[in-house]
Amino acid sequence: MPNKKVERKTTSSKDRQTLGRLNDLAEGVVTAANRRREPHLDIPARSLSNVRYNRTKKFIEMGRNTNRRQLFNLSQAKSFMQTMLAASGVTQLIEQGKTTSIRGLYYLLKHTIEGAKEETFGDQSECDPVIEDVEVLLGSLREELHLYAQKRGDMVGDIVLVDSGDEIDCSRMGSGGYGIPSIVEPEVIRFKQCKAKFILHVEKDTVWQRFNEDKFWRNHNCILTHGAGQPPRGVRRLLFRLHNELKLPVYCLLDNDPWGYYIYSVIKQGSINLAFESKRMAVPAARFLGLRSIDFKRCGLSESVTIDLNDTDRRRAKQIANYPWFVHKKAWQKEIKKLLDNGFKLEVEALISKNISYVTEQYTPERLKNKDWLD
Amino acid sequence: MPNKKVERKTTSSKDRQTLGRLNDLAEGVVTAANRRREPHLDIPARSLSNVRYNRTKKFIEMGRNTNRRQLFNLSQAKSFMQTMLAASGVTQLIEQGKTTSIRGLYYLLKHTIEGAKEETFGDQSECDPVIEDVEVLLGSLREELHLYAQKRGDMVGDIVLVDSGDEIDCSRMGSGGYGIPSIVEPEVIRFKQCKAKFILHVEKDTVWQRFNEDKFWRNHNCILTHGAGQPPRGVRRLLFRLHNELKLPVYCLLDNDPWGYYIYSVIKQGSINLAFESKRMAVPAARFLGLRSIDFKRCGLSESVTIDLNDTDRRRAKQIANYPWFVHKKAWQKEIKKLLDNGFKLEVEALISKNISYVTEQYTPERLKNKDWLD
Repeated sequence: MPNKKVERKTTSSKDRQTLGRLNDLAEGVVTAANRRREPHLDIPARSLSNVRYNRTKKFIEMGRNTNRRQLFNLSQAKSFMQTMLAASGVTQLIEQGKTTSIRGLYYLLKHTIEGAKEETFGDQSECDPVIEDVEVLLGSLREELHLYAQKRGDMVGDIVLVDSGDEIDCSRMGSGGYGIPSIVEPEVIRFKQCKAKFILHVEKDTVWQRFNEDKFWRNHNCILTHGAGQPPRGVRRLLFRLHNELKLPVYCLLDNDPWGYYIYSVIKQGSINLAFESKRMAVPAARFLGLRSIDFKRCGLSESVTIDLNDTDRRRAKQIANYPWFVHKKAWQKEIKKLLDNGFKLEVEALISKNISYVTEQYTPERLKNKDWLD
Repeated sequence: MPNKKVERKTTSSKDRQTLGRLNDLAEGVVTAANRRREPHLDIPARSLSNVRYNRTKKFIEMGRNTNRRQLFNLSQAKSFMQTMLAASGVTQLIEQGKTTSIRGLYYLLKHTIEGAKEETFGDQSECDPVIEDVEVLLGSLREELHLYAQKRGDMVGDIVLVDSGDEIDCSRMGSGGYGIPSIVEPEVIRFKQCKAKFILHVEKDTVWQRFNEDKFWRNHNCILTHGAGQPPRGVRRLLFRLHNELKLPVYCLLDNDPWGYYIYSVIKQGSINLAFESKRMAVPAARFLGLRSIDFKRCGLSESVTIDLNDTDRRRAKQIANYPWFVHKKAWQKEIKKLLDNGFKLEVEALISKNISYVTEQYTPERLKNKDWLD
């Protein structure tokens, strides 16, 4: 075997900041103990009742409610200790300059408590909310805690970035593209040069392949991304950074169905479950380019390519119509009503029935030219 | 909007060959009609009974049975016409120098037959087997018919390749990596320079991230790939090409469970459903590096990190033990028996309980050094 070169990451200022917060957390417990006071944590509540839509900022955010977690309380002692354990786990990661998945952290922390038969965590589902508690407690993104999510999604376009020291020219990435990492924080990814004027985000890899093959991004001077369905955190955070740091508008090309609406909603306003991350993930100015319910008529599609709505679709569509950020928007109410009236949904791929490159050569260019989108 | 530059791909010799076969197919029908004979197709049978394990070539292959599909037979006329329709669809794709997904082809072909209320295809599930029929009929890989599958998986390592004219240095791909395309045929991907000595293929993106972060591929001079679970066609075909053209051994690091065994089996021997592709997808010399059932003891893992086998696991394990390519291998019989005796499975991530980089700094290097794998 060749000799091993271990590369230690130098601790970034962000890491030092996070470590400071972790240290404060631990200090708080120690101080309480020294003063013979009961150690406790006040954890911002992640319940739906503590989530609200901020009309000014235009994204979902958490309220100010907190839940107290006490060490000397039989029903809370375990989760108190689990929280501290998770905090010590991420401290270890940051100090070693390493990252892992939430699955990895779970395995790192899981053990039988010495002298007892008690496990630190029963299973992953017991660990995940504790990790989220640590995030809100510290006000740190999961990525700042050195935890990565699933890695999905690719990017091409006229942008050069530096990823972990490697310069990557996304205009020279062939048919494969640059695999979007799950951690895209400024410590990992730096934008070096960008000539693109906007971002086209498509739902599926197969649609992305069509746009890439037709070199849409070159002809229209844009960045092309996909998230293989619901975009993972890395993709959303990258869209956020590209939008905010490089001032690139974001256009979303998604299916004409409740799932497509929902993906748009998450990109735009953030996810309800992870409301505390919206301010660093949501892109309120993102636009919904299509497909729209009027496209069936407008594009002259045949009934052959429609898919009937099922009960779940109808229920989801009504729920989404009532989201606070859609409920007052006439265009969205009309869009969703029309979907229900149509009684069917449409996939972006259905446009292929016009011709293979209709979506790249006609549909999308026309929508962009006429500023024909939903907001 | 910027002016549109449509790039026409020049037809490759492979494309001309495939077009030739498609032409022969059409000619056959025309000739029969002219001679007032009944047009028919003899389609190699894709049934399990027509699949066998070739012990010499060491992969699954199809037998010689065919099914006749006749135009003038009420029960076969529709599928005869569907087959010709699918063949004309892929002809269109190749002639236009474009590719699409099987979903895209379905939309391209789906329409109401003129003067009737009959649809060409009811749904995707009616179209998919017809596409497979065209593949076996022509003896062409799906990729040669310009059809792409889902795009998953990433690659890094000391290899420079040319993808659609773009030179990609996989040793300079940062944390994200090169997104493996779904079509990796020589017309798209050319290997330019390779210093790597072997391929390490891992099951999951999260494990891949651990290996990439620890720069395992640089320290051990290899190529690192993952397929986000069961590797899609593009990844399998790329492993095949790297293995055969660059003579790189393939080592697989998968979970110690029936699913991990199955992934290995597909990489090595091909998939039973798509047996006709094995000769251009399977890598019979691929090796199973781990995790193995003996690793629980050998690595000194704690019971905390085990996951109990369920009934499906046990049933699948027994099925896999009876695969013709495992049934005579003592080491594999022992491996699977030990799994069942253990009564639990282990994920690669469980090694994190030793320490974060145990898998990259100890487990994998030791196995490679000692040639300690299953074949």
